[in-house]
Amino acid sequence: MKLQENWTMLCDFYELTMANGYFLTGKKDTISYFDVFFRSIPDKGGFAIAAGLEDVVHYIQNLRFTEEDIEYLRSKNLFHEDFLAYLRDFRFTGDIWAIPEGTPIFPNEPIMTVRAPSIEAQFIETYVLLALNHQSLIATKANRIVRAAEGRVVLEFGSRRAQGASAAVNGARACYIAGVNGTACTVSDELYGVPAGGTMAHSWVQMFDSQYEAFKKYCEIYPTNATLLVDTYNTLRSGIPDAIRAFNEVLKPLGITKCGIRIDSGDMAYLTRKAREMLDEAGWPECKISISNSLDEYTIKDILAQGGQIDMFGVGERMITAKSEPVFGGVYKVCAVEDEQGNIIPKIKVSENVGKITNPHFKKLWRFFGRDTGKAIADYISLWDETVDDSGDFEIFDPEAVWKRKVVYDFEAKPLQVPIFKNGELVYDLPDLKTIRDYCAQQVDTLWPEVQRFDNPHSYYVDLSQKLWDIKQKMLLDAGAKI
Amino acid sequence: MKLQENWTMLCDFYELTMANGYFLTGKKDTISYFDVFFRSIPDKGGFAIAAGLEDVVHYIQNLRFTEEDIEYLRSKNLFHEDFLAYLRDFRFTGDIWAIPEGTPIFPNEPIMTVRAPSIEAQFIETYVLLALNHQSLIATKANRIVRAAEGRVVLEFGSRRAQGASAAVNGARACYIAGVNGTACTVSDELYGVPAGGTMAHSWVQMFDSQYEAFKKYCEIYPTNATLLVDTYNTLRSGIPDAIRAFNEVLKPLGITKCGIRIDSGDMAYLTRKAREMLDEAGWPECKISISNSLDEYTIKDILAQGGQIDMFGVGERMITAKSEPVFGGVYKVCAVEDEQGNIIPKIKVSENVGKITNPHFKKLWRFFGRDTGKAIADYISLWDETVDDSGDFEIFDPEAVWKRKVVYDFEAKPLQVPIFKNGELVYDLPDLKTIRDYCAQQVDTLWPEVQRFDNPHSYYVDLSQKLWDIKQKMLLDAGAKI
Repeated sequence: MKLQENWTMLCDFYELTMANGYFLTGKKDTISYFDVFFRSIPDKGGFAIAAGLEDVVHYIQNLRFTEEDIEYLRSKNLFHEDFLAYLRDFRFTGDIWAIPEGTPIFPNEPIMTVRAPSIEAQFIETYVLLALNHQSLIATKANRIVRAAEGRVVLEFGSRRAQGASAAVNGARACYIAGVNGTACTVSDELYGVPAGGTMAHSWVQMFDSQYEAFKKYCEIYPTNATLLVDTYNTLRSGIPDAIRAFNEVLKPLGITKCGIRIDSGDMAYLTRKAREMLDEAGWPECKISISNSLDEYTIKDILAQGGQIDMFGVGERMITAKSEPVFGGVYKVCAVEDEQGNIIPKIKVSENVGKITNPHFKKLWRFFGRDTGKAIADYISLWDETVDDSGDFEIFDPEAVWKRKVVYDFEAKPLQVPIFKNGELVYDLPDLKTIRDYCAQQVDTLWPEVQRFDNPHSYYVDLSQKLWDIKQKMLLDAGAKI
Repeated sequence: MKLQENWTMLCDFYELTMANGYFLTGKKDTISYFDVFFRSIPDKGGFAIAAGLEDVVHYIQNLRFTEEDIEYLRSKNLFHEDFLAYLRDFRFTGDIWAIPEGTPIFPNEPIMTVRAPSIEAQFIETYVLLALNHQSLIATKANRIVRAAEGRVVLEFGSRRAQGASAAVNGARACYIAGVNGTACTVSDELYGVPAGGTMAHSWVQMFDSQYEAFKKYCEIYPTNATLLVDTYNTLRSGIPDAIRAFNEVLKPLGITKCGIRIDSGDMAYLTRKAREMLDEAGWPECKISISNSLDEYTIKDILAQGGQIDMFGVGERMITAKSEPVFGGVYKVCAVEDEQGNIIPKIKVSENVGKITNPHFKKLWRFFGRDTGKAIADYISLWDETVDDSGDFEIFDPEAVWKRKVVYDFEAKPLQVPIFKNGELVYDLPDLKTIRDYCAQQVDTLWPEVQRFDNPHSYYVDLSQKLWDIKQKMLLDAGAKI
């Protein structure tokens, strides 16, 4: 199976009216710079996880209008024939830099930067945002759930409640990046290698004359994959006893000691403690206990705090939809254009709401790591051609409260964005999914526990260079004067 | 453009392990009946809107495993070779009945019923639920927003915040069914005929030397589609004055009186009242005012209550993700099987949680309409072969409080489910989208205002026939005894 590749027409219609407008006003080849950034972290968390870049790469590579698309556009009676003819060979010819998937990210820093003729840079807005917003949302939520499970296995079970097919498939991928161990979504395994697994629904149990017979048959067919769903009738009174009987009669003679039960309803703290006792007493200490049913980071923490004996969490709707906050608010804003001599002219979007003012200019994003601890100290946004001297002490300041200053020392400054496209050509080796997942775990580990806290986490520093700050202030003053 | 059609592998892995199990235990051809139903209405509303059936139809019609899929399954070392060979010709050969898209629906009634060999009926669970859950969720939310707008135009603007590509495309479709007037999502127009439109982003304004020049150029290119975004710098001090100047200089000489402005930030009640005054005073009474920015049914009601002068609402993330409650909890439960003689044996899922007990048996769903008012009185679930005599009085009762009885009179009983597939063949004429949308508006109109209320709506009756109730009680007693 192969996923749909050409999503060219999944654009906001205004991208087409503007494209036609840039075409007709001679502005289509003006080089412009757009940043993708977000303004607040879902669930009031301390950080988000970048994801969705691979999907953006495939989108860009497959960007082309079919004759049918052009015919549809013609039917709107809005577009110039020369523009429609131009679309026939429309391709992305610009540059893209981005933060790799799996990296912790923070508000107001450029997750992705696009430099391209304005007609192209503007056109890709919707899909770029859709892909990065969706997968970053799910990865961020999933990482919270994985941290709550404290090393226990977390599986993604949410396809049936996902917001459409792509939400199921790419959502499972994003969960895996963030540390989830596997999924129930078969196609995510076939396509991306997210390990898929599963055993039985209640209907399997109901389809046989007795629960015991259903369990026994299952163990006979899958002796090495026997996880039995024990809550169809009554978990403690019949479910676990029937499971133990099936394990004894089918698995024990085969010398198999690994097996599992799953509980999908009831009080999980109580039931799993009881289940553990019953299984241990019956001689099945290696039988794993899985639970599912409306789990998220908060229910998992509570159940564990109450002594729940759980090896595996199956997490569905609350992870695949990021139910507690189902929107990742990434935006796509112009930050500069080039004049005819190639000079970069910064652009800013002012707003009465201070939080909505953009960072102007073509920029470079750095992360400072302590050389002794390996921990992330701060992110730092400079102009694109600035360098950071990390050989000695370095002063940074809060861009919204400039008297708050901090000297960092014994640190290493690493650029966070990497080149993805150069003149329309892919220049980035897409890492395989397992590599992204390992990288994500390692990068989350560079964050201090204060930043990882679920409630009221420490605000990680994202500071501006003095030069960038000065330019921004001057532009704000000028804009105020002009209005 | 054509959407991906073969979603066979978007299944939960347990559907495959169970399928292999049914195959090996000789149960694959046992005819079984599954119901899709949901247990509670999102946002504590009074009703939901059914949507997603057309997507299910396409899924069923395109159900087939490729050689690549089978090769992937073989690599899991779990499935019997005979089963893998069987999958090569796997098709859906059963029957499906469903409530048409656009119909108001209520908890615990069968939205869809599947009758098929168990191996097939079980396999389609995930995609059927995914499609119905997603589109019903969005249609239900969108209908709330449409009702809040009280006849004003509502446009869907949320693609960039949708949970993946299908969420954007099918979400826009669901919104349109529910009464939204159009979308920014171009491909939803090309594919489904949801009217798409759009004009400009802030970047258009920033790309020109002045806001006035940006507006003037736009009016010149699109004199009949000139909706100008007026909040890039300052809505009242420069945005609207520049817009009026552009209208005066470009549109007036052409005799054009229809145009528009859009405001995307700031206090919408205040700004739109001021804007209306300024536009009227300048001689542009036909200039429409649109707003966008984090709207939903509650903000729309508030802004209108405060006298906002708005013709059009652009609604984004809160509609396309159903942000306030982003999960529609439809489930897929076995309700009967046939024995070898073709007798229908009812099945029930018991639970300590009363709300999770299923309605057993192959059933028929009716809606009673008052002949005088045309309004819906109650829904009524009977056994499949019962009829309802609506020529006289008819007593119904609350299945959870049987002493609550009500006599309905002068009513017409209409079956709600219609045949969709018969022996695997489509027997339903899929209505075009506009027809579904008109039907939805007309059906919502059959609900009393008490049921349509946003907060604390009247609980609509969904009752069981005496025969069905008796069977269910007996099964519960038997199950209790068996446990």
